[in-house]
Amino acid sequence: MRSIIYTVAFSLAAFPGFADPLPSWAASENKTAIIDFVESVTDPASPDYVTPDARIATFDNDGTLWSEQPLYFQFLFSFDQLRMMGAADPSILTSDTLKAAAKGDVETVVAGGKDALVEVLVAAHSGMSAETYRSSVSEWLTSATHPETNLPYDQMLYQPMLELLRYLRDEGFETYIVSGGGIDFMRVFAERVYGIPPENIVGSSFQASYQVIDGVPTLMKEGELFFYDDKEGKPVGIYRHIGRRPILAAGNSDGDFQMLEYTTAGDGARLGILVRHTDSDREFAYDREGHIGVLDRGLDEGPERGWAIVDMARDWSQVWVSQ
Amino acid sequence: MRSIIYTVAFSLAAFPGFADPLPSWAASENKTAIIDFVESVTDPASPDYVTPDARIATFDNDGTLWSEQPLYFQFLFSFDQLRMMGAADPSILTSDTLKAAAKGDVETVVAGGKDALVEVLVAAHSGMSAETYRSSVSEWLTSATHPETNLPYDQMLYQPMLELLRYLRDEGFETYIVSGGGIDFMRVFAERVYGIPPENIVGSSFQASYQVIDGVPTLMKEGELFFYDDKEGKPVGIYRHIGRRPILAAGNSDGDFQMLEYTTAGDGARLGILVRHTDSDREFAYDREGHIGVLDRGLDEGPERGWAIVDMARDWSQVWVSQ
Repeated sequence: MRSIIYTVAFSLAAFPGFADPLPSWAASENKTAIIDFVESVTDPASPDYVTPDARIATFDNDGTLWSEQPLYFQFLFSFDQLRMMGAADPSILTSDTLKAAAKGDVETVVAGGKDALVEVLVAAHSGMSAETYRSSVSEWLTSATHPETNLPYDQMLYQPMLELLRYLRDEGFETYIVSGGGIDFMRVFAERVYGIPPENIVGSSFQASYQVIDGVPTLMKEGELFFYDDKEGKPVGIYRHIGRRPILAAGNSDGDFQMLEYTTAGDGARLGILVRHTDSDREFAYDREGHIGVLDRGLDEGPERGWAIVDMARDWSQVWVSQ
Repeated sequence: MRSIIYTVAFSLAAFPGFADPLPSWAASENKTAIIDFVESVTDPASPDYVTPDARIATFDNDGTLWSEQPLYFQFLFSFDQLRMMGAADPSILTSDTLKAAAKGDVETVVAGGKDALVEVLVAAHSGMSAETYRSSVSEWLTSATHPETNLPYDQMLYQPMLELLRYLRDEGFETYIVSGGGIDFMRVFAERVYGIPPENIVGSSFQASYQVIDGVPTLMKEGELFFYDDKEGKPVGIYRHIGRRPILAAGNSDGDFQMLEYTTAGDGARLGILVRHTDSDREFAYDREGHIGVLDRGLDEGPERGWAIVDMARDWSQVWVSQ
């Protein structure tokens, strides 16, 4: 039996398409760093060997696994949701901000700053059961398309990151999303598109309540913030939800700084990855400035901390998921 | 090949010690109900078949997996912890309640009601790093013993429930703890004693903060309540942490009522289990009254809801974990 296994492994190695766990990553020091890291923590003979139960990898979502321009997709969902909710019952549009959102007037809402965005989020994400909310997101994903690419949102996934998720799982890692986005929002599609099950999603959330309504036990989404899983919140979210420090963390913005800091400060081999959006032709180009996905401190301090700064234009031979 | 498997299964069935997945459960309708349920959801030919990813089982901890008398063990830890903290720095004992707790004067603290108990909990569980806290609990478990049985606390585990956890995992279930107890407290021992890893623990928690202290990324435990995972909080905790409705839930008190209600209201085969403490000889006997583990509504409504009410004295041939 053993000789047969050796033979198979040997034949696969002869075909680079099979042997390369990250085919959409161009040859680069970053690709080498990732593969070297995975090999060092999975080889029982390596001084950096990590037992499978401690192979925890955490990924930001917006801008790391899928796109986030011109606005987080969850905000774009909220605008569409308010349009539908407002059409059914105009009385719910109780402010100029909500009226603007229901008209799809993104500029006016964004001009209102953080308070206006939160108002839109709250209105689109509360006062309904978790089940009703899930159906709305699911329906939206099958019908809405991105204003610039015209792609369905759940096709604006990065093929190289999907390969990385799969590679890690094949090597015994448990993969998690740790995102500032809403936990309920991501759970609708994360298992289907990323292979990451509901229990492995850490995210922001509003309060929830349990009520028996007409005899039916129901989880209701409420309008007050419960947990904001961004910046310092990410290590806190990891600590609460996972209870172990990751050995690999990937993000793309300063909202991920503390997650990478916490992850890479642990003992033994650790890997921090920051995706830098450098590709205006195939995706978008932005980093130090803007209202979404600002990457500033990470660019300054990441290299000296040993984090891999992935240059999308240079390091990825393909951007979007293969259909 | 197939005939060999049949032969093995047949021979095992001839030896009850091998074939019985719950050897410490006496023959009873409850034992039969549990085994019938597990067989019905794991047999692909059964109309109640459930795919492995949806085989979620949630267990209360105090009074369900280990004892909870004369007081939740986490409170007993808090008293011991305050004694040590107070010996090192008496100035932290800022009230009569904390002074009483540090003296081990349980009666005075309990007489102070919920506020006094919360004050003791907060003092013993905040103002330190998560790491320091974990070490304290770990140290306590190796040294402290129960005032009545003189057993180490982590030997006051129910053998029949350990068998049930193992049986479920062997049958492809994912087992979780969903407890009113502290998530950090349980994570210290749950993997070792129950085989339930940190990420599968849902519990109550205080606020936490992420701080870089002298260059070291640190999770600090703060003194304000973050989430109380009891009663209506249990379905909310399950929804947030797991994101799927369990198909089996086990508890022992009215604090578990909503978890069982939510679980058994789902479609398809479901099982709710309540452990009733009826065994004053081998453990403790209590249900409708008291300050710990009150089971009243569950006794009234459980049977008509189809929940298995496990009578510890009658249904368990062994109580404590086999050493």
